[in-house]
Amino acid sequence: MTLSKKPYKGTRDFIPEDKRVQDYLFQKMHQCAQLFGYEHYDGPLLEEVELYKAKSGEELINDQIYSFEDRGGRFVAIRPEMTPTVARMVAKIHKEVAKPIRWYSIPNLLRYERPQRGRLREHWQFNCDIFGGPGRMGEAEIIQLIIFFLESFGANESHFEVLINDRTIVDTIFTEVTDNEETHYKLYKLVDKSKKIPKDSLEKELSELNLNAKSIELFQNYLSLQSFSDLTSLLTKLGKKEIADDFHKFISDSISSDQLPYLKYDPTIVRGLDYYTGIVFEVFDKHPDNRRAICGGGAYANLLQIFNESPLPGVGFGLGDVTLQDFLTSHNLLPDLSKPENDLLITFQTDSGLQDLSSLINKLRKGNIKVVTHLEAIKLKKVFPLAEKKGADFILLYGDDEKAKGEVTLKKLSRKLQSSFPIDDLNTITNFIHKA
Amino acid sequence: MTLSKKPYKGTRDFIPEDKRVQDYLFQKMHQCAQLFGYEHYDGPLLEEVELYKAKSGEELINDQIYSFEDRGGRFVAIRPEMTPTVARMVAKIHKEVAKPIRWYSIPNLLRYERPQRGRLREHWQFNCDIFGGPGRMGEAEIIQLIIFFLESFGANESHFEVLINDRTIVDTIFTEVTDNEETHYKLYKLVDKSKKIPKDSLEKELSELNLNAKSIELFQNYLSLQSFSDLTSLLTKLGKKEIADDFHKFISDSISSDQLPYLKYDPTIVRGLDYYTGIVFEVFDKHPDNRRAICGGGAYANLLQIFNESPLPGVGFGLGDVTLQDFLTSHNLLPDLSKPENDLLITFQTDSGLQDLSSLINKLRKGNIKVVTHLEAIKLKKVFPLAEKKGADFILLYGDDEKAKGEVTLKKLSRKLQSSFPIDDLNTITNFIHKA
Repeated sequence: MTLSKKPYKGTRDFIPEDKRVQDYLFQKMHQCAQLFGYEHYDGPLLEEVELYKAKSGEELINDQIYSFEDRGGRFVAIRPEMTPTVARMVAKIHKEVAKPIRWYSIPNLLRYERPQRGRLREHWQFNCDIFGGPGRMGEAEIIQLIIFFLESFGANESHFEVLINDRTIVDTIFTEVTDNEETHYKLYKLVDKSKKIPKDSLEKELSELNLNAKSIELFQNYLSLQSFSDLTSLLTKLGKKEIADDFHKFISDSISSDQLPYLKYDPTIVRGLDYYTGIVFEVFDKHPDNRRAICGGGAYANLLQIFNESPLPGVGFGLGDVTLQDFLTSHNLLPDLSKPENDLLITFQTDSGLQDLSSLINKLRKGNIKVVTHLEAIKLKKVFPLAEKKGADFILLYGDDEKAKGEVTLKKLSRKLQSSFPIDDLNTITNFIHKA
Repeated sequence: MTLSKKPYKGTRDFIPEDKRVQDYLFQKMHQCAQLFGYEHYDGPLLEEVELYKAKSGEELINDQIYSFEDRGGRFVAIRPEMTPTVARMVAKIHKEVAKPIRWYSIPNLLRYERPQRGRLREHWQFNCDIFGGPGRMGEAEIIQLIIFFLESFGANESHFEVLINDRTIVDTIFTEVTDNEETHYKLYKLVDKSKKIPKDSLEKELSELNLNAKSIELFQNYLSLQSFSDLTSLLTKLGKKEIADDFHKFISDSISSDQLPYLKYDPTIVRGLDYYTGIVFEVFDKHPDNRRAICGGGAYANLLQIFNESPLPGVGFGLGDVTLQDFLTSHNLLPDLSKPENDLLITFQTDSGLQDLSSLINKLRKGNIKVVTHLEAIKLKKVFPLAEKKGADFILLYGDDEKAKGEVTLKKLSRKLQSSFPIDDLNTITNFIHKA
C-alpha cells in the first residue's frame, strides 16, 4: 500500500505559497496587538479535560474535542480554544501584576467537526483579552482594536459591521418576559438560533414555552429590534430608560466617531450559552456571498471563578485565520503574495564559482541581505527567469571573465543597471544593493 | 475540588515575559532562514500514524508518540517531529517545483517522555531542509546555515562545535569489519550509545558480536578517531584513500575558512538508526555544565521512497527551542527581555480624558506608533514608574491645564525633554516622537 500524500481530514498543508498568506495575516495580528500595547503569550497544546469541562460543560467537550487518556492516566485534550488556558494563566499571576492586563496570542486549535467552508478541524485564532480594565473601558478598547485590525487590511464600512448587544440588557428584558430562570435559558437558546431557523419553527418553539400573550409579544418585539434607538424605545417603554442611557453613553463616549458607523445593534447576538456577562459582539462580513461572522467575543466577569480566584472582569475576542482569509479574499483585500522575497540571487558561470564566492556571500548575509544561491553553474539566459521566480531584484554573475579579474558583476533588474566590483569590496557591493 | 492552575506535565505556560524570550529565538530563526533564501512552510498538527510508522518503525511510535483513534476510526498522532510531514508535502509537489527546494518551519511538537533538563513533552523545533541540491552542495549549505544561525546570537568557537561524520564512510569501514549486514546494524547501535555507556560494557557488547580479533581492533580504531586526519590515515590504510579525499575535499571546498574551525570529525555521531545516508552532524554545546547536542541532522537520499516517489536527495536539521535557550543561557547570550516594548504611554489627569484623546490615539497607531493607554485618570507621580514598566520612553499627559488649552504634553523620559502640542496637530506630535 502506498502512503497517502494528503493531509489529515480538516487540516491544511501550508506550502510556502500558502504559508506566505497566513504569515501576512499573522504579521498584521502581531502588529495590531502591539500597537495597542497587548503582550504576546502562549500556552500548552494540551490541557487537562477538567479545565474545559469546568468552563464549557460536558456537552461541548464530548462532541467537539480531541481528548484521550495519556499513559499516566490523565485525561487530556488538544486545545479547542484559548480562553480556558488564558484564564488559567491569568488566575496564576493576576495578583502580582498591574492592571489592566493586555494579552494576545495566535495559537493553533483543534476541534472535531465536519469540515465545511470557514470551518476546519485545525485553525489558528487571534485572541486578544484585557483583564481588569476599569468600568467599560476594556470593552471599548477591544472593539476599537478589532476595527483597527480589519482596517489595517484596507477594509472599511462597506466590507464589515460590528453587531453588538449587551447581556445585561438581554437579562433585563427576559426578566420582563418571565421570572422563570429556566425559561431564560431556553430563550437564550432560541435567540441564538433565531437567524438560522425558519420563522414558523421559531414561533412553534416559542409557543412551547408556556408564556402568556404579552410575554410572547415582548420577546418578539425584542427580536425585531433594528437599531440602538429601537432598543432605547423598548427599554423606555419598560421603564428601564437608565439602562438604555447607560448603553448609549458607553457607545457614544468611548467609541470614536470614525469607528461608530461600524456598530449596529443586533438583538440576536448573545454568543450562545457561554460565560459572557456584559457586551457581546460579532464582526460580520457584508459580502452577499460570505454573510458570516469573522470574529466574536464579549465581556465576562467571572472567568477566574473556576479557580476559586476573586473576580477579575475581562473582555476578549477570537478571530480565526480561515474566516479572516475568506473575508479578505471575498473583498479582494489580499496583496499578491505568489512570490517569495529575496534581495539577491547569486549565480556563477565558471568552475568552483560558489567556492570563490562563499566568503562574500557570508558577509552579505551578515549585512542583512537576503541571498539565495544557485548551487551549480547556470547559463546567463536562465538566470533572469530564475531571479523572477525567486523574487530577487538583484543578481550576481560570476563567469570566466569575472574570475580572471577577481570581480563580480551585479545587475539590478527593475532598473536595468549593471556594474562590476572587486570580489572583496563588500562596502561598494552593499551600497549598490541598498542604493541602486 | 479547585481546578489546577499548573500547565500539563512537560509543557510550559508562556506569560509575556517568557514569550518574549521565545519570540526572540523565533525571530532569529525566521531571519536566518530567510537570509539563506529558505521559505516558510507548515503542516498539520495531526498526521495519520501510518506516516510515522513508515518512517521510523513501530518502536518509536509506540513509546514516544501521542496517538489515538479519532471518531472516524482513523489512527492519528500529534506530530512528534516535522520530517515525515515535510517528506509528505515535498512528495506531493516536487515534480512541479524548481530545485533546490529550500524550506523551513518552526512547529510545536509533542513527544511522550519523562520531562528532564532540555527535554520536555512539548517543544518547538526549527527545521530547515534543502531538497535536490546538486552533489554535496546542500550538505554544505545546511552546515553554513546552522553556524550562521548560532553566530547571530553572538556565539562563537568557544561556545559550540559541529561534530560531523558521514554514513557512507561508516558503512565502508563496517564492511571492512564484517560482511554480515545484521552485524552492521548492531555496530550502528553500539556506536550510537558508545558515549553514554562505560567502556567495559561497550567491550562486553562488542565481544558478543562474534567478530575476529582483527575486526574488533578495526572497530575500536574507528571509535578512537579524533580528527579528519586520523580518519584519512585509517581509510588510507584500508585502501580507501579516495573516500577520505572526497570527504576532505567536500569540507575544505565548500565550508568557508571562517566556519571551518567549528567542524570536528566525530566517529560516534551516526544519528541512530535513522534514515540518514550521507553526512550526519550534531552541534554540541562546549559549556562544561551543558555538554549536550543543541541540534542534529544529516543527509538522506530516500525520504520520498515511502510515497513511491523517485529519489530526491535532501539534507536537513532540527533544532529545539528548549536546548537552544539552555545553550544561550549557559553562555549568557540572551539580551535583557524583561520589559515589553512600547513607544508611548498615554495618560490623563482630567475627566473624560480618554474620550478627548481617542481620535489622536487612533491616528498615532495608524502611524505605527505603539501606544499603550492607561484607562483611568492617574496622578503624575505614578506615571513614571508605569512608563518604566511598560517599556515606553515617551509619555503623554493631559490634565485640566492641557484640556483648557486644547493641548497635550509629551515627555521623552530618557532625554528629559518636554513639549506641548495642540491636540489635533498629529504631524508635530509624530515628529517629536520620531526625532526627539
